[in-house]
Amino acid sequence: MKHRQGQENVAGDRREGDPVEPNMSNGGGRMRARDAGLRFGRMYPGPNNAITDVGGVMVGHVTLSHESRQTGVTVVVPHSGVLYREKVVAAAVIINGYGKATGISQVNELGVIETPIALTNTLAVGMAYQGLVDDALSHNPEIGLTTTSVNPVVAECNDYLLNSIRDNHVRPSHVGQAIKQATGQSVAEGNVGAGTGMVCYGWKGGIGTSSRLVREPHGNYVVGVLVLANFGRAEDLTIAGIPVGRYLLPPAVKTSKKVEGGSCVAVVATDAPLSSRQLARVARRVQTGLARTGTFSEHGSGEFAFAFSTARTVLHWPSHDPTRLSEIPEDGPAINALFQATVEAVEESVVNALFMAKTLTGRDGITVAALPISEIRKLADLDV
Amino acid sequence: MKHRQGQENVAGDRREGDPVEPNMSNGGGRMRARDAGLRFGRMYPGPNNAITDVGGVMVGHVTLSHESRQTGVTVVVPHSGVLYREKVVAAAVIINGYGKATGISQVNELGVIETPIALTNTLAVGMAYQGLVDDALSHNPEIGLTTTSVNPVVAECNDYLLNSIRDNHVRPSHVGQAIKQATGQSVAEGNVGAGTGMVCYGWKGGIGTSSRLVREPHGNYVVGVLVLANFGRAEDLTIAGIPVGRYLLPPAVKTSKKVEGGSCVAVVATDAPLSSRQLARVARRVQTGLARTGTFSEHGSGEFAFAFSTARTVLHWPSHDPTRLSEIPEDGPAINALFQATVEAVEESVVNALFMAKTLTGRDGITVAALPISEIRKLADLDV
Amino acid sequence: MKHRQGQENVAGDRREGDPVEPNMSNGGGRMRARDAGLRFGRMYPGPNNAITDVGGVMVGHVTLSHESRQTGVTVVVPHSGVLYREKVVAAAVIINGYGKATGISQVNELGVIETPIALTNTLAVGMAYQGLVDDALSHNPEIGLTTTSVNPVVAECNDYLLNSIRDNHVRPSHVGQAIKQATGQSVAEGNVGAGTGMVCYGWKGGIGTSSRLVREPHGNYVVGVLVLANFGRAEDLTIAGIPVGRYLLPPAVKTSKKVEGGSCVAVVATDAPLSSRQLARVARRVQTGLARTGTFSEHGSGEFAFAFSTARTVLHWPSHDPTRLSEIPEDGPAINALFQATVEAVEESVVNALFMAKTLTGRDGITVAALPISEIRKLADLDV
Amino acid sequence: MKHRQGQENVAGDRREGDPVEPNMSNGGGRMRARDAGLRFGRMYPGPNNAITDVGGVMVGHVTLSHESRQTGVTVVVPHSGVLYREKVVAAAVIINGYGKATGISQVNELGVIETPIALTNTLAVGMAYQGLVDDALSHNPEIGLTTTSVNPVVAECNDYLLNSIRDNHVRPSHVGQAIKQATGQSVAEGNVGAGTGMVCYGWKGGIGTSSRLVREPHGNYVVGVLVLANFGRAEDLTIAGIPVGRYLLPPAVKTSKKVEGGSCVAVVATDAPLSSRQLARVARRVQTGLARTGTFSEHGSGEFAFAFSTARTVLHWPSHDPTRLSEIPEDGPAINALFQATVEAVEESVVNALFMAKTLTGRDGITVAALPISEIRKLADLDV
Repeated sequence: MKHRQGQENVAGDRREGDPVEPNMSNGGGRMRARDAGLRFGRMYPGPNNAITDVGGVMVGHVTLSHESRQTGVTVVVPHSGVLYREKVVAAAVIINGYGKATGISQVNELGVIETPIALTNTLAVGMAYQGLVDDALSHNPEIGLTTTSVNPVVAECNDYLLNSIRDNHVRPSHVGQAIKQATGQSVAEGNVGAGTGMVCYGWKGGIGTSSRLVREPHGNYVVGVLVLANFGRAEDLTIAGIPVGRYLLPPAVKTSKKVEGGSCVAVVATDAPLSSRQLARVARRVQTGLARTGTFSEHGSGEFAFAFSTARTVLHWPSHDPTRLSEIPEDGPAINALFQATVEAVEESVVNALFMAKTLTGRDGITVAALPISEIRKLADLDV
Repeated sequence: MKHRQGQENVAGDRREGDPVEPNMSNGGGRMRARDAGLRFGRMYPGPNNAITDVGGVMVGHVTLSHESRQTGVTVVVPHSGVLYREKVVAAAVIINGYGKATGISQVNELGVIETPIALTNTLAVGMAYQGLVDDALSHNPEIGLTTTSVNPVVAECNDYLLNSIRDNHVRPSHVGQAIKQATGQSVAEGNVGAGTGMVCYGWKGGIGTSSRLVREPHGNYVVGVLVLANFGRAEDLTIAGIPVGRYLLPPAVKTSKKVEGGSCVAVVATDAPLSSRQLARVARRVQTGLARTGTFSEHGSGEFAFAFSTARTVLHWPSHDPTRLSEIPEDGPAINALFQATVEAVEESVVNALFMAKTLTGRDGITVAALPISEIRKLADLDV
Repeated sequence: MKHRQGQENVAGDRREGDPVEPNMSNGGGRMRARDAGLRFGRMYPGPNNAITDVGGVMVGHVTLSHESRQTGVTVVVPHSGVLYREKVVAAAVIINGYGKATGISQVNELGVIETPIALTNTLAVGMAYQGLVDDALSHNPEIGLTTTSVNPVVAECNDYLLNSIRDNHVRPSHVGQAIKQATGQSVAEGNVGAGTGMVCYGWKGGIGTSSRLVREPHGNYVVGVLVLANFGRAEDLTIAGIPVGRYLLPPAVKTSKKVEGGSCVAVVATDAPLSSRQLARVARRVQTGLARTGTFSEHGSGEFAFAFSTARTVLHWPSHDPTRLSEIPEDGPAINALFQATVEAVEESVVNALFMAKTLTGRDGITVAALPISEIRKLADLDV
Repeated sequence: MKHRQGQENVAGDRREGDPVEPNMSNGGGRMRARDAGLRFGRMYPGPNNAITDVGGVMVGHVTLSHESRQTGVTVVVPHSGVLYREKVVAAAVIINGYGKATGISQVNELGVIETPIALTNTLAVGMAYQGLVDDALSHNPEIGLTTTSVNPVVAECNDYLLNSIRDNHVRPSHVGQAIKQATGQSVAEGNVGAGTGMVCYGWKGGIGTSSRLVREPHGNYVVGVLVLANFGRAEDLTIAGIPVGRYLLPPAVKTSKKVEGGSCVAVVATDAPLSSRQLARVARRVQTGLARTGTFSEHGSGEFAFAFSTARTVLHWPSHDPTRLSEIPEDGPAINALFQATVEAVEESVVNALFMAKTLTGRDGITVAALPISEIRKLADLDV
């Protein structure tokens, strides 16, 4: 599909086999970790094993993949309504603050998210911010007239190894495109959207997603996770408990660049009725999920977690009266199930990013290899 | 100087009498609060009574003032070197997180600021972010090649009452212009830079600055403050202890817009050798300084404080060995003097913003009046 | 009533004129600030102008006042039920963390308070903690058997100037006594309970309280505040806007002791239905209220704020199903009224502590004078 | 050594084979994980593989083990001088705030620890607090006279399953005893001190410790960790990557008590010159270390981490001049090595607690079994 190279690939719903990822000469035969026979934790995933298993949640990608341009935008859209008018309850947690996420202060002050969550490369945060502003203005003519401002939530990782990041490829309009393309079906993973140029544990990383079902007697909820995985040292990689990094290292990257620690962003969605405080507790478990993949959260690895609940919306123009709402009881059976679900889904999301990302050659001819799935299956005694 | 109206006014060093502020038909005869005979606290200001009294600190403004375009950019530049390579020790404190400041997570994780601090309007944060990225890239060709990212610090208030904020007047290049124009002399106040369209206690607000000298036996330091003042209800205004809002209210603004709470950003600079933790303690006293002007920190008033020390720089490429540095002893005589200096300078900065801002007519012909200085002098028994 | 001197005075409901405060030779004629003609802010207080105006809230004091023993315990009891089983929604905010309050981590993690809030002197925190444990054990035979632990909330100030604090006068049983004595009527102020030996702005300080009514169209709520006031420098004292410290300084304290900054604890109660996150926002306004009395929050002044809502209780043994609850809408009319009420009530509480505390001679014959109310009235032009 | 049962066992330096642990009929043949052939991570431990490998750091235990009394106190003493006068730089991090640790606010406000860190059971925090006060008063006659207060650091877990916690066995004097007994040699683990009655992943838990050496080119430092391990569900236990909980579950505990989540406290010591901010970053990696043992940080598991550096002391009475100090450069080679060391040492400390703790029968005849080391060796293919 060489003819598509250099085009802007806009897609909200792509899966393994879809031709829009370039550079697929190596690393072919990608599949999700669960399809390769691996299991993570004890809980069951939802039908898509994706953040979109949470009803209403949509994901959209704009992939910019051509030669030295290897970057993009991914958006997580909490519901299909006008978010600014019907905000979702949310929280943001800083695991390692060495990163440039925006919107965190207001999310935690007011307990809501009022824009899609946009992920992109570290130098494109301003552009993505503007893209979210533009989107909000387009749907809400009252912003800046009869009401005030909007709080864009943007988070980032650094794809500078594969992407000519100084060339500023991301435009505000890419955010709008990603939102428009967003769907609630299966989610493209690996080298898509913001994940296009990302590197994880020395292998090609990117977007990954997973979900878990919380079942009775713990409740009847879904937890979905999406990660932008760009972190970790090759020797630390652990998959489903297997210390992969002891046995398998990626080919050396030919570069004079300093290969520094990346970063990771995780978005957790749930339909459980949680308060902002409870969602912060959920988001704090993202660190535990990342730890299961072997990392110790390196100095340079900015790690941020966002969590939101779709169980109710908070109106921008509320009525005078106190709002009636429901919330899971803290000492009841649900909270631990939600924590566990989050940890398991974060772990599986990271591995999905590694399993679905293909070998990619980007800027200056630098190539980052896809994790060889067959080797992992051998290490896991799944492929004898 | 009517002919300059509508032009882009770029200036880093303007004072009362300078013709670049438009709409000066009313509110003329502006002067700084101290020149009007008022005194705030017990400590003495530095020679400029400005944040630039801290050696090396510079301020630059880009003022966009024409008809419905009433906005701009203000930058505080900690020193004249390349900030990315020689970072300043810093901290950021969230008083009321209902705002969109960027960079806070990393400032507090690593304890340094590595770009100028840019202030602008609430919908222009993305553009200003990009402007700081552009500036950093231009001075640091290694970013994105042999080193990683940069952490832009942007903070904002909402000037939507006077400024056609939906029209997105601020461009990334304005940040570069403001940085280029920045000087370490006296600082233009009122309707300049980010302050152009701001409203404070119902009167015309904007940029204000002040400083205090810490003298032996407490040490020999300077504390400088710059505020972007866009907060408060008219009835709460207090100046030097006088409950102005009881006696003096601004003319009603003719608008169908909802006039909501604004916001406030304060930047504190000092040459005292403080750690990031100590600077956070300093920044936490900004709330106390704001309180002295009467506000109770309204729900909608995002209030953020940044503090940095110029006493030493943190190298981007450090040597291997532990850094030798100095720090004021916590239980010694200096810390309280620095706290008090901060509170006094914040209070005086806000009042300077009110005293220096002129009546301005902006978007939709809406006019916000300048605080009548003579009335304040009467209330203070200074003008009998 | 000399014969009672040296006895342990246990009282939950005492007011000016009550004979249990010793050392009343000077500073007689105490009255509350409002009775002296002063007004703070624009909102109206409740019938008691006390934290007990919030329905169900009770206050109890144990006063230990004899010669060098000048200390005690004050408890704020959110309701008359078993708190451990019916917890109140709550938050705690650290203004200046130089203090030893306990329980904060869990209050903010779970969003509830499950014991009375105990205030005492800084070295007695362990004893008060044990007292709260004992009280919880006595009412909840299941703690440590079929359920787990309890989270005591204790906060402190340092009364070492007047109290022989090294002698460890406070016992766990004093907490139980204070709880038993607690009433929901008017609240004794000044030299009572934990306030017995406290010093504020160089004058005799201690316990103060006040309240505000939030009325329609903002809602129909009460905000009550109780402070343990032991902070501030004489020259900074400001009362209702009057810079008292410029004109009136207390007699020098005859001591070789270093007279260091004290501390302040504030408890805010309300019947408005607020979440833990919203209560944290309320508690953050305590700093603004304290600032109105002139302080800049000195280095040594540990300042902590607790806020709780009585609008609903959180059950220790919840049902399985999500809890139905109500919460005020954040952008509705109530939140600013609650913030303003808090600021005003904090300010008036501090002044009430000063107005109600009598001159006291304690350890080593050290005397701290009562603030001369008549002088304040003169400064306020109330006594011409 | 049955005759010693029921006596108070005070010991600061005991190891496997020491007779003071009662109930050793089962679970005999205890050894440390490394002695059993297991390895954790890639770095090397120090000579004691204990927190005491950090020069000057001492640990002391008071073990109260008799029938239904199964509790105690453990202290970590940063150096052998008077801590109050020569404080250590420190930070505290809350992983899951469902716990009652004291002192955190001040540790983070001032960046120092000025008492030993005392660990005990959850209802004994007040007593331990008083014990630290008593110890500080005894060494510092100026506290409460010419200087002010002291900030005791106490943390806790809940040993209610095995210990008759309602009976309040811990006295303030036990803290003093533990401090007196503290030594800088090898550290007793398992059922000692605060660990006496603790349960971890359903097996007998308690005290564990480990260390790591940071070597050139990363620097020349030691990181030591001590944990009080009382957390986790049996099915989640993971040891050195082996999902032990899938294969091996403890015998059911015969009790009508609700067996709820426990808690965990970790203390990290290092001789690397770190600021308080940097130590907080180190402490934040404790969550990652705990995650390696399988837990997802359950709702009820209060998890707190303290970190301190012995590289320099902060004087209580500082001189007037700025302090000269050294600090590792943040972007230099050391910080990641310190993070990794922390994660590895936390993991090994938890496993050491499990490996060294013996089967214990406590309150109501409840028995918690020791983890069968031979089974773990088999699972790890070490015992074929």
